[in-house]
Amino acid sequence: MPPFFQSTCFLNLPGPMPVFHHFALCPHSRFIRLVMGELWMEAEMVETSPFCRARDFLAMNPAGLLPVLVEHDGQVVAGPDILAEYLDETRGLVLGDRRLLPENPGERVEVRRLLHWFNAKFFHEVSELVLNEKAYKRLFPEAFPGDAPNTNAIRAASANIRYHLDYVAHLVARRNWLAGDRLTYADLAAAAHFSVVDYFGDVPWEKNEAAKSWYARVKSRPAFRALLADRLKNILPAPHYTDLDF
Amino acid sequence: MPPFFQSTCFLNLPGPMPVFHHFALCPHSRFIRLVMGELWMEAEMVETSPFCRARDFLAMNPAGLLPVLVEHDGQVVAGPDILAEYLDETRGLVLGDRRLLPENPGERVEVRRLLHWFNAKFFHEVSELVLNEKAYKRLFPEAFPGDAPNTNAIRAASANIRYHLDYVAHLVARRNWLAGDRLTYADLAAAAHFSVVDYFGDVPWEKNEAAKSWYARVKSRPAFRALLADRLKNILPAPHYTDLDF
Repeated sequence: MPPFFQSTCFLNLPGPMPVFHHFALCPHSRFIRLVMGELWMEAEMVETSPFCRARDFLAMNPAGLLPVLVEHDGQVVAGPDILAEYLDETRGLVLGDRRLLPENPGERVEVRRLLHWFNAKFFHEVSELVLNEKAYKRLFPEAFPGDAPNTNAIRAASANIRYHLDYVAHLVARRNWLAGDRLTYADLAAAAHFSVVDYFGDVPWEKNEAAKSWYARVKSRPAFRALLADRLKNILPAPHYTDLDF
Repeated sequence: MPPFFQSTCFLNLPGPMPVFHHFALCPHSRFIRLVMGELWMEAEMVETSPFCRARDFLAMNPAGLLPVLVEHDGQVVAGPDILAEYLDETRGLVLGDRRLLPENPGERVEVRRLLHWFNAKFFHEVSELVLNEKAYKRLFPEAFPGDAPNTNAIRAASANIRYHLDYVAHLVARRNWLAGDRLTYADLAAAAHFSVVDYFGDVPWEKNEAAKSWYARVKSRPAFRALLADRLKNILPAPHYTDLDF
């Protein structure tokens, strides 16, 4: 089992490799880790608190977003959607016809629509609620002063996740992958968000075979391995979390 | 004075011109209206309620976002950031060296960072609060069941807007425009959000000459004229709203 993350809150100066600031269970960080995995891109991984407000962190990233990439030339790129565009523009072409953001403007619209769906809508309706209640309030109590656990939030998340599973099933009934015939950013973002909820065993996969089978395909990609190795301090994942035949 | 907007909530089938669904005072709609103005792009403008949940509207735009562009070939593009990328990819190149999203990956990161700053952060901290309290609760009471006016929200917005004015001043002290040496999406998004607050006379321009002078430059662009002609039913703009020398 890997050691508990080193939660840092300072700017690592860029060395020969890009530096990637992320938090293990942050779904937006996980999405970009999957993208970097698909690109076979190496970076020095630095675990950073999602509530980091240290002066040098905010100096490079005024909105305080995660994840953050610091290129070896000092270029800072923060936030999942901006990083996805940037990595496509600087490294995406090498994937050729497996490029994660397709060339055609109409197909790009569909990929970006689903990116927004999962990175914003699913996040607010599901993954953020689960994370706050099941991990962040315990790991970072100082970020939730006076906040007791909120069972209504968990209840809302488990109601909401069902229609998102149905939406995944609706999409893959018409297409091979979420946004079309090939794996794109849409699949990686969606799987990143589901994976966070899955860590706590809160995805009702048994209710939706089509969504489960799509997730199994993404989960079995080599880029997913690092996510399956993540462990939070004192919060173990559900038993099936690492199982490719869940 | 133009007539009160026709708030529609149905899908206009595409004709020879693209159809643009927007709401007059929605800052995300205003941002894209400014972009279309800079591109000299024509579209049939259809005023749509920001709370439209009609079946055919959601069928083309499942997340229910505004604004929405429906191209003459039926392609639907919804949401400010996705529309900005799409319009750049399909029509942006004609602007040559006045392109609103620069070519260089590092400059694109900066434009997108500021887009996110204004379309998400400023929206949540300022323009959404002002809009809800001063317009939407009166125009669309059905969207706020049981919600009384909230003076704390207005107070928070007027505290928050000051640091955003300072941030604009900080940026233009170092650059000609917000993201660099030329006008970009960053200026249009920022000005769109400020313009909504300015409609109600709630931008303390007198506190910040540098931000005021940047806004005056954007406000005097021909693309801005349509925004200055907007009028909400029973809610008149502040006297200086249309004044280019405010």
